[in-house]
Parts: sequence; C-alpha cells; structure tokens
Amino acid sequence: MRHRTVHGEHHHFGWDHSIPPVLRVEPGETVEFEVVDASGGQLHPGSTAQDVARLDFGRVNPVTGPVWVEGAEPGDALVAEIQELEPSGWGWTALVPGFGLLADQFPDPWLRISRYDARWVEFLPGIRLPVRPFPGTIGVAPAAPGRHSVVPPREVGGNMDIRDLTAGTTLYLPVQVRGALFSVGDTHAAQGDGEVCGTAIESPMRIRIRFDLRRGAGLRRPQFTIPGPPTRHIDEKGYHVTTGIAPDLMVATQDAVRDMIEYLGRQYKLDPAEAYALCSVACDLRISEVVDVPNWVVSFYLPRSIFV
Amino acid sequence: MRHRTVHGEHHHFGWDHSIPPVLRVEPGETVEFEVVDASGGQLHPGSTAQDVARLDFGRVNPVTGPVWVEGAEPGDALVAEIQELEPSGWGWTALVPGFGLLADQFPDPWLRISRYDARWVEFLPGIRLPVRPFPGTIGVAPAAPGRHSVVPPREVGGNMDIRDLTAGTTLYLPVQVRGALFSVGDTHAAQGDGEVCGTAIESPMRIRIRFDLRRGAGLRRPQFTIPGPPTRHIDEKGYHVTTGIAPDLMVATQDAVRDMIEYLGRQYKLDPAEAYALCSVACDLRISEVVDVPNWVVSFYLPRSIFV
Repeated sequence: MRHRTVHGEHHHFGWDHSIPPVLRVEPGETVEFEVVDASGGQLHPGSTAQDVARLDFGRVNPVTGPVWVEGAEPGDALVAEIQELEPSGWGWTALVPGFGLLADQFPDPWLRISRYDARWVEFLPGIRLPVRPFPGTIGVAPAAPGRHSVVPPREVGGNMDIRDLTAGTTLYLPVQVRGALFSVGDTHAAQGDGEVCGTAIESPMRIRIRFDLRRGAGLRRPQFTIPGPPTRHIDEKGYHVTTGIAPDLMVATQDAVRDMIEYLGRQYKLDPAEAYALCSVACDLRISEVVDVPNWVVSFYLPRSIFV
Repeated sequence: MRHRTVHGEHHHFGWDHSIPPVLRVEPGETVEFEVVDASGGQLHPGSTAQDVARLDFGRVNPVTGPVWVEGAEPGDALVAEIQELEPSGWGWTALVPGFGLLADQFPDPWLRISRYDARWVEFLPGIRLPVRPFPGTIGVAPAAPGRHSVVPPREVGGNMDIRDLTAGTTLYLPVQVRGALFSVGDTHAAQGDGEVCGTAIESPMRIRIRFDLRRGAGLRRPQFTIPGPPTRHIDEKGYHVTTGIAPDLMVATQDAVRDMIEYLGRQYKLDPAEAYALCSVACDLRISEVVDVPNWVVSFYLPRSIFV
C-alpha cells in the first residue's frame, strides 16, 4: 500500500487537542512524516555555540502532525509501528545553558555539529558512534484542555527520549481523545539512555509509521516491544561503568555522570563539555538496585567500542 | 599460582574495620571465597514461605572475609578481578514483608526455590533464565568506626547488587583503611537491573578473585570494567518494555514495575507475587531520560527469550 506524507511545515508547538488534524487515516495505514530538528530549524550545519545562546525557546521542540486515526477512542491503545527512518546526514549536540542534568556545572553554551553516514556518526576525533535513529518525541494529545509544553513527556507519551524506539519497534500509546491526534518530532541519530546533557545527535529525518488500534487496552502509560537485541550495535567491546550510590536516585544519577566525566577527562583527555556531551549521546543509565535501604545504585555504562 | 581459600565460616555481619582479617594477601594474589547465601543458611532447598516469615534479620547478609591486602592505603583503588564463580545448583527468591520496591503492595511472605544447571535456572513453569552468577555484595571496610549494616551499599561498595559484576569483570573499589579489608557475599545466580522485589536467585557459591592495587586512584565510588557484551545472553528475542513517567525517579520506577506486573498477569497469567519476583530476577530498569523537565522516564525491560 502506498503511504501518505505529512510535510515538515505541518508542525505545531505544544500538545493541544484543539489543534485540527492535518491528516486522517484508517487503522492499518502507513504515514511518512517529515520531522524538523528539535531547534525548529534554528540550528544548521554552519551554526556555532553563539547560536545556541540565541535560541528562541518558543520555537523549539516542534512536532509534525497531528494525525487523526479513525475509530480511536479514549481507553484504546494507539499502536505505532516504527517502520523506517531516513536520516539527513547531519546533526547537532548542544549544551544549552540552564538545561540538562548538570546544568549548574555547565553554564556555557556549547555546540558540536556531526556528519554521519548510514553507519557511523563521527562525534569527536577518534570517537565514532553507530547510527541508531529514533524519534525523541512521539505521542498523542492529552485529554486536558489547553496547550501543554512539548518538553516534558506525559502519560500520553511525548518527549520520552527512549533511545530504543528504533525501526522495528512497536509503541503502544494510551489514547485520551477521539482520533488519538498523533504527532512525532525530535528525531535523533544516536543517544544513550538518559540523554544526560539534554540533547542527543539532533537531526532532521523522515520517519515512516504504521498505525493500528488495540481496543480498550486500558494502558496507563506507553509500552513498547523491541523485536531484537537493542544493544548489539554497541556492546562488543564491553563497558566502563561508574556508579552513584545515594538515598535519592537523582543524586545517585548525577554522581555517576560526574564520575564518568572525570574518567573521560583522565582516560581520553576530553574536556568537561566534550565528556558531558559524549555521556549524553553514548552512555547508558541503569538502576542497578533500588531496594537496599536506604541507598540506591545507579550505574552509568560507557561503551568501549566507540573509541577507534 | 595456587590460590588460597577463605572458608564460609569466616563470615561477618556488618562492615567494621575493627574486625580482624582472616587472611593477608599480596597484590597479584588470587583468593577463593566460599560464600554463604544471603539468608546466612536460614533458607535451604526444603524451605517454604513460612520460613521467610520467620527469618532472623540479625543473621542475614553475611559476607566472607575480611581479607587484608598488603600495601593498600586510603586513596588507592583495590582492584578485584572477578575470575570465576562456581554455583551450587540451587537458589531461593523471596518476597520479604516490609522489604522491596513495592513492599506496601506485597505484605505476604513468598518463596520460590529454583534448581539450575550450568546454563539455565528453571524459575517458573515455562520460564527459564540464563545463569549469570555474580556477587551481590562486594566491598571494603569504611573508614568510619563502628559497625555498619551490610544492607545499604556505600561509597566503599557493599550490597550494590550490580548484575553485571560477572566473571571477567574488573571492579575498582575506593580504599578507605589500611589493608582495604575486603569481603564478599550475597551471591546471585541471576538478577535483573534493579532487583526490584529485593531478592535475586539467592545462591551459595564459591568465587575466585584476583587482587591488585592502583595507587592514589582517588575514586569517590566503585567503578568497573566489563570486557564483553553484558546482555547478549538474554536479548536475542528483544524485550517488552513498560514506562514510568513522573517528576520523581522513584515514582517513575514504581509505576514502570507496577505496569509490568500487570502486563505479566494479563499476557502470561502470572499471579502478582510471581510477576513481581520475575521482575526482580529478569527485568532491567533503565533511565531513558532525566532532563525533560519536570518529568523523567524510567523504562523496565522484560527479555522475551525467557519464555520457552
């Protein structure tokens, strides 16, 4: 079956179920979306750190859509099969002042423009990441009226930044309004679990999604199914891992990331901004234990295969 | 080089740098430890849930040791190469009243005794986990005087329950007292990231560790290096994943686990206690994003290969 396309100019800022749909589809239909990058086109391959400082936050996080899915009713799950992503070959990674896990420690804007081919992102000299594209933001409209920022993810999905939502994955989103009103944006060429500096390899892309419905699924939050091994692209040389150990998961997370930044400086001579950005695009946050009262362990996994 | 053995009767309860070492070794030496299970021998292959209710908590979490490493000084890292684990072939998994991520939801004691061979744990009918042994508790004595519970992990390690500390892994522990005073315990035959119900496949084992020192490493917390792919044993059929989305990582974690328990009930007809225990021994908690203010995403990964 041929698919229809939603072009990049059909984007919106904020989730709002009063935004009229730009396309109506039947369950079973496939749609291709042109996704604008998370800066809404404000950053481009020639941008510098000064452009990060000048970002207009009213124009960030655009999402393409919304698409009305015929028959979708509150209580259903919208099934979104992520079929294919067609990356653009370039992306940006920024430290945005005031944003990110260690915002206090990194007050200055920083930007890295990366080029990538079908397989690799050249992120820093001698550091190469496998390309593994996914949409950072994918969701449906919330029932609550009014305009809701796209920045925080919600029970209806949105800016979840789940790095395993790659092609082949099937996402189940809880429908809260008739027609579901699906939108997608914020495509990333690569990212680690956590996206700790606040940005990934941010890259405009085309993404093809097949829709379906699961009636009365009664999901409270998004769930997804990954068909095969999610980490085989990156783990063949193992990992170096730092830990955070604290009675608060956030503190443990920050401690583990700080120790990794220090490790990357000592071991690979990265400056702190480079190390922090690398943590965001390549390292994975895992909760090792969350039961041994009163201290929890968060581990931060650096894949050793990225050093070439 | 032949190695020396620390027998299981040389265990202690609590970390305390005044406990005399049971063995002194040089850097470069290898030691085999007999590790008693986390119940301190109170549970055995014939135990029932009633025995869980009668556990004496003064006798849980014994660790074998301590071993004095010659030349270790505060500020050094003790290098512990985990060389081999020789599992015993049986293990227990319990819901212990008052303990675990969802303690309020699971007030009753529950116990599952598993048998396992070199490759597989038969955990529940039709559910088989790859055996992947590691020490749940591994650490050195803290500088602070007195006796410190073994339950919480600390900056010197301890009950970290990091499921990737398997054979081949090298652990770096920050030394806080002369001689380091290393102990190990709480061996597990399998566990997911998080150990959400509070227990794994708890199993007595022998473990062989080679010690070394890294002078003046100045580590704040444990770090470790994994030589190869840590998840290839389990991920060939992909995952089903639930999410928690909340402004608090702990709430997001609990939500993701609750949704998985419900999913396992609906999809695989597990009762809630079985599902919760399976979450603990097989599913992995990851932090997908921790920057999209004010909501963080914790994802909980169920490996589909365990269903046979």
